[in-house]
Amino acid sequence: MFDEDHFIQNCLKPLADNPAAGGFADDAAHILPPEGKAIIASGDTIIEGIHFLTGEAPELVARRAIAVNVSDVVAKGAVPWGYLMHLSVPAGMPDTFGRRFADGLGCANALYELSLFGGDTTVVPETAPLSVSVTMLGLCDHREPIMRNGAEPGDVIFVSGNIGDAALGLMVATGQAMPSVDEEHLAYLEEQYRIPRPPLGLQGAIVQHARASMDISDGLVGDLERLCVASGVSARLNAAKVPLSAAARAVCDKEPSLLKVALTGGDDYETLVVVPVDETIAFARDALTAGLTVTAIGTCGEGPAEVVTVDRSGREMQFETTRFSHRG
Amino acid sequence: MFDEDHFIQNCLKPLADNPAAGGFADDAAHILPPEGKAIIASGDTIIEGIHFLTGEAPELVARRAIAVNVSDVVAKGAVPWGYLMHLSVPAGMPDTFGRRFADGLGCANALYELSLFGGDTTVVPETAPLSVSVTMLGLCDHREPIMRNGAEPGDVIFVSGNIGDAALGLMVATGQAMPSVDEEHLAYLEEQYRIPRPPLGLQGAIVQHARASMDISDGLVGDLERLCVASGVSARLNAAKVPLSAAARAVCDKEPSLLKVALTGGDDYETLVVVPVDETIAFARDALTAGLTVTAIGTCGEGPAEVVTVDRSGREMQFETTRFSHRG
Repeated sequence: MFDEDHFIQNCLKPLADNPAAGGFADDAAHILPPEGKAIIASGDTIIEGIHFLTGEAPELVARRAIAVNVSDVVAKGAVPWGYLMHLSVPAGMPDTFGRRFADGLGCANALYELSLFGGDTTVVPETAPLSVSVTMLGLCDHREPIMRNGAEPGDVIFVSGNIGDAALGLMVATGQAMPSVDEEHLAYLEEQYRIPRPPLGLQGAIVQHARASMDISDGLVGDLERLCVASGVSARLNAAKVPLSAAARAVCDKEPSLLKVALTGGDDYETLVVVPVDETIAFARDALTAGLTVTAIGTCGEGPAEVVTVDRSGREMQFETTRFSHRG
Repeated sequence: MFDEDHFIQNCLKPLADNPAAGGFADDAAHILPPEGKAIIASGDTIIEGIHFLTGEAPELVARRAIAVNVSDVVAKGAVPWGYLMHLSVPAGMPDTFGRRFADGLGCANALYELSLFGGDTTVVPETAPLSVSVTMLGLCDHREPIMRNGAEPGDVIFVSGNIGDAALGLMVATGQAMPSVDEEHLAYLEEQYRIPRPPLGLQGAIVQHARASMDISDGLVGDLERLCVASGVSARLNAAKVPLSAAARAVCDKEPSLLKVALTGGDDYETLVVVPVDETIAFARDALTAGLTVTAIGTCGEGPAEVVTVDRSGREMQFETTRFSHRG
């Protein structure tokens, strides 16, 4: 059975390797940001059965909890630094849970160069879901971070990586009917859903060139709508330009209606970046230098804060819902 | 029915009045600590049925979530500054919940001069408990905060406020048999349990004079043991010196066995402060100047990291358990 004290002392303590955490000797972290740096703080909770599948591997739950928060911080042009974690573990978890969960955290810490700063662990009744809340702190040089409200008419809308893998992968993971494509494609999509990989390294290009930026967690179209509302601009999204993986392309070619799932489904954890026209080449070059691909998918315009999505023939696409809701 | 979006826009947003929160326009807070200040970060979760009574008033749940975190930050000699909150609300909460919860947060914000910096809200299944995780940020001047590991043999152990009201008040609140004392005493104890009041203002005296400090959340004797383990000292605790309210005194006079409940029960949210002998008068004076009472209750010694508690006749007291465990 999961033991809270053993977990804290033997599994979490080794992960608190930043001086800020004081070796977990205390219940408070002492955080001294380096001279001249500001802190970006962002908090996201993931809950079993809502944000990840019931029975998901503990390693992957931990990695997801960190990745979704890294995603937020990267989108603000900040470098992930460390985090406080609130973990609620249902009573009766097997005793391997703690070790496996900490292994996942360790993996994420190494991947994103992070340290656990502090937090708390609580055993909750068996009927409660496993829940991980993370408050992620990132460091940035600039006094004004890149927020979602800076887009202007005429700006170009970029997206990092590929869109839609996770939403299609969730369909695979939950056994929903999929077009008959290569098994490897389906396995790829499922893996993309299970292991979010935010575009770490994009911060430099964002800080240098972006006017607005946010991470995509609830679907490309819906999150772009949010950015438009915050910035007071409209957006024209060219669906044919939206980058799809070979696997997502194969699936959407066989079943074109799944393109809408890709465009509006959740869990991409890529970044939406709005760049002035005359910065687009430099932005793409800087992203490439960081080993990341970015793709121009649309433009901002005057007018009502809404998104018009057009297909390859220029026809406006209609969506029943533009936003993926992580609920029940 | 509780509506997440309405809650965020109408109830939480007005509480995010610090520029760090960016008016909740973004999902990340931009935190620029004032020149030369370090940040103390502490995180505590409170869960329905574990850390507070099932069905507790939403205002009091919110106030408790903030108070227990303010308690940690004050004990480190830091000034509470702002917080990120992760809120999990069971589906089917009445629509008054959001307003009432936010009223409680607003009250705590005013009391402790805090601002909501960010966080997230999730609706969870009806079978899950209401859960509030807070990451509290405090500011301190000093580069080395006061932790729990600095106590030395010969130092004097102080405690703020009164001890045991909350543990006795929990007995009242849960309908356990109590000695027949004035009803007002019982009402006082119950109120002390329901509304924790950490000793805000003690930070200055702690920073000036303390060698070690921690908040008391799991019982005086058990938390003092933790401090002894962290500092590598023993402690002699004089039970007759432990400050009790008139109400707790009345109850313990009628039923002496309840003194052990007062000394080992949880939820005091007072501060344990260890001060060198030659600083004791100045410490008590500075605390008084801040409007707070502190009481010397024991001394630190050489030897094994354990606490010996003696009663008024000098006899060693034995406890079945020295620490209150917030579990199911």
